[in-house]
Amino acid sequence: MAHVGTGTSGRGVGVGLIGAGRIGASHAGLLATRVPGARLVAVADPRPGAAEALAAPLGARAAAGVDDLLADPDVEAVVITASTEAHADLVVAAAAAGKGVFCEKPAGMDLADVERGIAATDAAGVVFQVGFNRRFDRSFAAARAQVEAGAIGVPQLLRSVTRDPGLADPTRVPPWAVFRLTLIHDFDTLLWMNPGARPVSVYAVADALVAPGFRDAGLLDTAVVTIRFDNGAIATAEASFSAAYGYDVRGEVFGSAGMLTIGTTASTSVVRHDATGSHAATVRSDVELFGDAYTAELAEFAAAVRGGRAPAVGGRDAHRALAVAMACIESVRTGGPVAPAESP
Amino acid sequence: MAHVGTGTSGRGVGVGLIGAGRIGASHAGLLATRVPGARLVAVADPRPGAAEALAAPLGARAAAGVDDLLADPDVEAVVITASTEAHADLVVAAAAAGKGVFCEKPAGMDLADVERGIAATDAAGVVFQVGFNRRFDRSFAAARAQVEAGAIGVPQLLRSVTRDPGLADPTRVPPWAVFRLTLIHDFDTLLWMNPGARPVSVYAVADALVAPGFRDAGLLDTAVVTIRFDNGAIATAEASFSAAYGYDVRGEVFGSAGMLTIGTTASTSVVRHDATGSHAATVRSDVELFGDAYTAELAEFAAAVRGGRAPAVGGRDAHRALAVAMACIESVRTGGPVAPAESP
Amino acid sequence: MAHVGTGTSGRGVGVGLIGAGRIGASHAGLLATRVPGARLVAVADPRPGAAEALAAPLGARAAAGVDDLLADPDVEAVVITASTEAHADLVVAAAAAGKGVFCEKPAGMDLADVERGIAATDAAGVVFQVGFNRRFDRSFAAARAQVEAGAIGVPQLLRSVTRDPGLADPTRVPPWAVFRLTLIHDFDTLLWMNPGARPVSVYAVADALVAPGFRDAGLLDTAVVTIRFDNGAIATAEASFSAAYGYDVRGEVFGSAGMLTIGTTASTSVVRHDATGSHAATVRSDVELFGDAYTAELAEFAAAVRGGRAPAVGGRDAHRALAVAMACIESVRTGGPVAPAESP
Amino acid sequence: MAHVGTGTSGRGVGVGLIGAGRIGASHAGLLATRVPGARLVAVADPRPGAAEALAAPLGARAAAGVDDLLADPDVEAVVITASTEAHADLVVAAAAAGKGVFCEKPAGMDLADVERGIAATDAAGVVFQVGFNRRFDRSFAAARAQVEAGAIGVPQLLRSVTRDPGLADPTRVPPWAVFRLTLIHDFDTLLWMNPGARPVSVYAVADALVAPGFRDAGLLDTAVVTIRFDNGAIATAEASFSAAYGYDVRGEVFGSAGMLTIGTTASTSVVRHDATGSHAATVRSDVELFGDAYTAELAEFAAAVRGGRAPAVGGRDAHRALAVAMACIESVRTGGPVAPAESP
Repeated sequence: MAHVGTGTSGRGVGVGLIGAGRIGASHAGLLATRVPGARLVAVADPRPGAAEALAAPLGARAAAGVDDLLADPDVEAVVITASTEAHADLVVAAAAAGKGVFCEKPAGMDLADVERGIAATDAAGVVFQVGFNRRFDRSFAAARAQVEAGAIGVPQLLRSVTRDPGLADPTRVPPWAVFRLTLIHDFDTLLWMNPGARPVSVYAVADALVAPGFRDAGLLDTAVVTIRFDNGAIATAEASFSAAYGYDVRGEVFGSAGMLTIGTTASTSVVRHDATGSHAATVRSDVELFGDAYTAELAEFAAAVRGGRAPAVGGRDAHRALAVAMACIESVRTGGPVAPAESP
Repeated sequence: MAHVGTGTSGRGVGVGLIGAGRIGASHAGLLATRVPGARLVAVADPRPGAAEALAAPLGARAAAGVDDLLADPDVEAVVITASTEAHADLVVAAAAAGKGVFCEKPAGMDLADVERGIAATDAAGVVFQVGFNRRFDRSFAAARAQVEAGAIGVPQLLRSVTRDPGLADPTRVPPWAVFRLTLIHDFDTLLWMNPGARPVSVYAVADALVAPGFRDAGLLDTAVVTIRFDNGAIATAEASFSAAYGYDVRGEVFGSAGMLTIGTTASTSVVRHDATGSHAATVRSDVELFGDAYTAELAEFAAAVRGGRAPAVGGRDAHRALAVAMACIESVRTGGPVAPAESP
Repeated sequence: MAHVGTGTSGRGVGVGLIGAGRIGASHAGLLATRVPGARLVAVADPRPGAAEALAAPLGARAAAGVDDLLADPDVEAVVITASTEAHADLVVAAAAAGKGVFCEKPAGMDLADVERGIAATDAAGVVFQVGFNRRFDRSFAAARAQVEAGAIGVPQLLRSVTRDPGLADPTRVPPWAVFRLTLIHDFDTLLWMNPGARPVSVYAVADALVAPGFRDAGLLDTAVVTIRFDNGAIATAEASFSAAYGYDVRGEVFGSAGMLTIGTTASTSVVRHDATGSHAATVRSDVELFGDAYTAELAEFAAAVRGGRAPAVGGRDAHRALAVAMACIESVRTGGPVAPAESP
Repeated sequence: MAHVGTGTSGRGVGVGLIGAGRIGASHAGLLATRVPGARLVAVADPRPGAAEALAAPLGARAAAGVDDLLADPDVEAVVITASTEAHADLVVAAAAAGKGVFCEKPAGMDLADVERGIAATDAAGVVFQVGFNRRFDRSFAAARAQVEAGAIGVPQLLRSVTRDPGLADPTRVPPWAVFRLTLIHDFDTLLWMNPGARPVSVYAVADALVAPGFRDAGLLDTAVVTIRFDNGAIATAEASFSAAYGYDVRGEVFGSAGMLTIGTTASTSVVRHDATGSHAATVRSDVELFGDAYTAELAEFAAAVRGGRAPAVGGRDAHRALAVAMACIESVRTGGPVAPAESP
């Protein structure tokens, strides 16, 4: 795939952001102030006033809509932080407009969605990056480098866990979110930490333990997944939507020559010792834990767009992780293990 | 069940040990020197000279055999550390002789075995304790106390992991050892950490990753198990027979109000920092990690025998844990989840 | 003291940086790309080409010299990262030009120097901040907040340690650098962590253990200091110029109701366990450890300049810390404890 | 020095214990139940009934007094846990009776006391061990082994800290206890961790911060000591009699090639994470922290007595540590650094 670079001008890549929600606001702020090689140019959001409210303080313009944003020649690339259901169509539209594309995960609601995005960005020769931010976290990246260097031998047992600090509004969570929106990060991490191996079997259990009243509405908030790989490795992924102690993302890779553990719940290095024991503050949000990783993934995006090269994590990675998520859904439905679909 | 106590004489409980292998030697040494309330009286082992070699330096006598040992009026209680296949018959014989019984895990090769042991010890009114030593480890016990006190709310996600430092001789490992001999500890821990809940579904995957040449002989050395409980909790148990870094036993209990993590790989508190980073020594054996727990479980056994009371962990616990192990075997055979048998 | 604010214009505070050395380059990069509320406008450095080399890639101009930079109306404030000997004169000159002043520590070579700076910035009504970056480190700030909240009662024993990863060029280290340039951070930390208390006695020992050949030239690279406070608390500060394992800054505050420990040598959360034990990477540079703190202190400076208010840490703090450093020098000379000079 | 061994009989060394206070009771219990190679034979204590109350449950006899105990041929060795003031005379008397001697620290109230003990035990050719239990702690011993192996190069900066969980009764603390009874452990540790070096200068500060009302009575409860060694190394020792969080003993050895940290406040490996952060239990007593070290030092004593060899830590070590303590007292009196006395 040849990527269309946008030249080597000294100015940062002009970015238009679509979707001014929580993560959109975070990414917009980083693009406007911290991301090397990027400039926030415009923001679009269908809710009245939302784009304006986000864009103005950051010195960007509020686009009239997606079409307006994509028609802006100053917008060289787009960051898609819209609702999940809209991701695939937006990827296709942005590619058609010749823009580099960064799409938050998942890149679509099903595999056909992601395939459409891959086809469109391939055809347009534009960058297609997905928001697997953990790849840009210092600790996860350092662990992966050790795996690649053979420091722990051949991976045999892997673990990835994600626990969110709480469920804001159960009525707004998309169906099967625990697999498609949350554990998809863990699936990408597990695939990445077991280089060259393919998942051959997925078994998932899930339940509504946090908000049992929403079980009938299809909201599952707790899940455990077992993945077998073709190199013999066995992985578990585990998620909960309600960790009392904050935001908890950890990993473990056990191999024939050793083990890596990744992640900590500590938000600072301070420990207080008093009459009741020792105490430390815990990480409370994704932004606290992954703020630097968000910055780094957007810097990678800007560099890929400017350099006309493939990003470190792209549409095919999104497909592989979503294939595991879709197998989980099928596993929960059937009650048995499921082979995930092949990825391109 | 009424237990027959052996009085309140000032002397420790006279113990006969059956099986002078590795763990037998360890228990014998503890009984002879460290276990409060116990005295090592006699040792039996079918291998010529084995009983003598172990007993003599410890000031105990070598019995001519099991019958001789059980006929010894100075033997008030027996510790069974024989080969796994012999456990059940020895439990029954010891009970028939009116001796208190401590049996290493598993208490039998199948559920019928354990049921025989329960029936025999119930009938004789003697103590029947099984070697689930983790219950006597300071850290695991402290964690369980917090679970019981409600410190983390209702358990939702649990984890228990056991990794052994290496496989001495693959030809001597009993069939399905990864479930019946190793993970049975984890199953007991998970059941214990989720008080009052019953396992309703077990899914297991296992492979021969450490010693692939023995796969056809039925030796599986790596396994991951998912257990669902009737209170909604989901647990994972994970084992490997070959951890390059030593002996690794850890646990995690995540509940509606918090999480407990249990276990460390550090063998001392020393950390060396040098030009290549920071470094710590790791735990290398079960005796290093659980020496105090072995002492404590044997002290509990002696106290239960002397007091004529039920021990902290008994035959019914052994049955529950083995029921999960047997469901694992069935799950590996069928490739799907299996409901474990009911326990008494 | 009234501060002259520079209005509430939407643009960031225009900053001129004086001194394009290592820390100057770091601060310039942060000002140009990451510090909220600041813009890097100009750079001055007496070495030919140094200002240009730093300024150009950052989109700032190279001033012909300090006078040129101070005459620039677009320069609202200056950041002084010149050689230590030049600090005091530059503070005075910048104040005379009506610029807000941020000066790297120490703010002068002796107390008279710092007093000149305080007088000049007071007279001009401009901001005077000093580079005690640890106050802006998340962990140190969190600890201090706990001290202030009374979480550990009254401070009784304090410790602060600084170890640098190595001595680049012993011939370029200013005299008594271990006290005036390195431990001055620790002195500020200790004073800050014992709010309201005054140091009454200082005892210092120092030696040339890293580079013994430079002892006669007055280069001491290893030092330990004991400080007694008027509230009874006793503090130790400790420095070495050559830590094999990297850059090590830690603190401890023990009080009547508990203890706080601050700092870690770990650079990521990854731990590798292998046949030789467990291993973690260590922090290797001040920029790695304090990059966010450098950004935060410069953001505070910009906010103080824009708001016309006193900064969180100012000239009087610089005086207090330097008074301890000067007492250390006297203590080494006399071999006994010394009372530090009073501060304004 | 030739030691008189007591043969190689299979029975443990018969031990008489003098002083049935808190530490005496602890040692007696260990001797009776856990210490390999030792038997508790008799207990003496001047307080009516104290010896009987301790000895009887342990199966030992209550001696009528010290003379009675020393006259007992079954007593091969004595453990002295009497009040500090009585130590020296008891050491001399036990040596005169031909008994091996284990004396709790300090081995005397001043250096002449310790010299008497050394002379008497040398003359009698009996073992003379002192209660520097930290040498037998797994972590401290592992650290020392690394120092000796050169893992951190030449020691340059050392630290040892002791904090007790509270002051039971200030009226019963001997004068200068903070140096002679508490920090003497730290002095021994620091000397031991800097092999072959001699202390050349000691500077001490001390105060009554825990119980200010007892300052006039000479009770100092908080102290910080700086020690310079003839190899250039600088050490700090720090003590408090009142740590709200328990019993805290830690050390640090920084050398030309790295650093060792020793000690933890954690009493188990359990960490609870909840809405207020993460929490761990802390060590609450010396017995909890050093129970195994107490057992190991008494086992070493028994082995030295049985083997007729010098113990791992003896009277000369006691002299060296007390010489530092005496220099501390002099330093507090004079307000300046003091050279400690030479040791034999």
